Amino acid sequence: MSLGLIAGGGELPRAVAESARAAGRPVFVVALGGMCGGWAEEFPHERISLGEPGRALKALAAAGTKDVLLVGKVERPKFSELKLDAKGVMVLPKVIAAARRGDDALLRMLVGLFEEAGFRAVSVAEAAPGLVAEPGSLGRISPDESHRADMTQAFAIVRALGALDVGQAAAVCEGLALAVEAAEGTDAMIARIGQLRDNLRGTPEKRRGVLVKALKPTQDAKTDMPVIGVETVRRAAEVGLAGIAVEAGKSLIVGKNAVAAEADRLGLFVVGVSP
Amino acid sequence: MSLGLIAGGGELPRAVAESARAAGRPVFVVALGGMCGGWAEEFPHERISLGEPGRALKALAAAGTKDVLLVGKVERPKFSELKLDAKGVMVLPKVIAAARRGDDALLRMLVGLFEEAGFRAVSVAEAAPGLVAEPGSLGRISPDESHRADMTQAFAIVRALGALDVGQAAAVCEGLALAVEAAEGTDAMIARIGQLRDNLRGTPEKRRGVLVKALKPTQDAKTDMPVIGVETVRRAAEVGLAGIAVEAGKSLIVGKNAVAAEADRLGLFVVGVSP
Repeated sequence: MSLGLIAGGGELPRAVAESARAAGRPVFVVALGGMCGGWAEEFPHERISLGEPGRALKALAAAGTKDVLLVGKVERPKFSELKLDAKGVMVLPKVIAAARRGDDALLRMLVGLFEEAGFRAVSVAEAAPGLVAEPGSLGRISPDESHRADMTQAFAIVRALGALDVGQAAAVCEGLALAVEAAEGTDAMIARIGQLRDNLRGTPEKRRGVLVKALKPTQDAKTDMPVIGVETVRRAAEVGLAGIAVEAGKSLIVGKNAVAAEADRLGLFVVGVSP
Repeated sequence: MSLGLIAGGGELPRAVAESARAAGRPVFVVALGGMCGGWAEEFPHERISLGEPGRALKALAAAGTKDVLLVGKVERPKFSELKLDAKGVMVLPKVIAAARRGDDALLRMLVGLFEEAGFRAVSVAEAAPGLVAEPGSLGRISPDESHRADMTQAFAIVRALGALDVGQAAAVCEGLALAVEAAEGTDAMIARIGQLRDNLRGTPEKRRGVLVKALKPTQDAKTDMPVIGVETVRRAAEVGLAGIAVEAGKSLIVGKNAVAAEADRLGLFVVGVSP
């Protein structure tokens, strides 16, 4: 049965679409204008604005889709500049109210729209199981005892923050919380570790500290599993981190082979754990 | 009775010293080299390195001091480059172990050293009560309902983070966590709000969002009360925030009159609350 992929920005939507298609499943892409890249042209698709849920529902129904999946980065629109269809006008007040409550509330609300219209919301894990992080090290390098202690601390931070819908990532180095993610996103969070004094953190020559990315307890694995890829490994390497830990079964790794190779080349570990 | 002020960096140590002296109390300053500014010359003082607790204890005893207070920013030293006296050599392993557990653990450990030697650790609130934040607005502007909701959320974030010894500050704008402080410090945290897309945050023309700074639950009011001053108001103003909230009775405001005047001039509120 065909998969309806409502695709935002970033690498993940394309990885999901290709992974599902490679598994023999037809994919129909609802490409969110200004966010979803040009790769959508390689699939049956419809490009819409965030204010056109009516068009999205119609296109998905016409494509014979029952299962839908919202994936990728969705930027909060300037509601005043949004192109709206009839359905969009109807749901806009709910969308604005949800956006006030945080990104997760907004995503849940959008998924709810499709469920109300009779679609089934599926998770990335279901649509593209090959992307899900497995337990253990992905490359040749494994965390040591001190890294494991930092991982435990960083998971506790992400969990505490996540319960308040703040962010998905934190970095800890030998007991010191180096950085915590909020609205700036994981990439900007990693980058600023490089601006800390170098006695607080590691360097590419002497790696120290761990990046942890994990699902917020308020998040639904259907909409916003944390994701890492080759670029995450490169950024972590640049600021001297020793490795990256994600939750096995509840995180996604885009391009596992490439991630493993890059981690080995740069001297980092990438590990899936069950914290 | 004379006050022994172990002074690190920033504006706070000088404000405490001047406030105590203005109240008629003699002050002896132990100036931490490389951190405490030249203002210490205006007081009886001794300049030492972090590795010389023996010299500090001796100087304080010679000055007839019983009450001590460690205040200001203390940077984690490169332990390998530290100038050590005999006492410093003895306590170094404990200091390094404490430093691994976080900034608060390090401060508590240093205060413990003085307590073991028979000194009494006093709080800034006790030594300089005029600096403590009081309930209510400091200037003419007060927070509205939406600001109060953001304040509640930001206090919850700081409390959750603080329990994990992460940071003291967070900024929330209409339900969205803009930024959360870790090792980079409050100034850098505020500055990066200005790099967020401007539909997520306020601007100097249309102020939105609140900065909250509060004591970590793991922190001891004797060593690390959160502090704001004129510079904090200016930085918050620059990135479009609507105001600053601190915990009344558990935070310090350096230069209250100047802070109120600057907040009024720039159009921000500065408020002490009992969350």
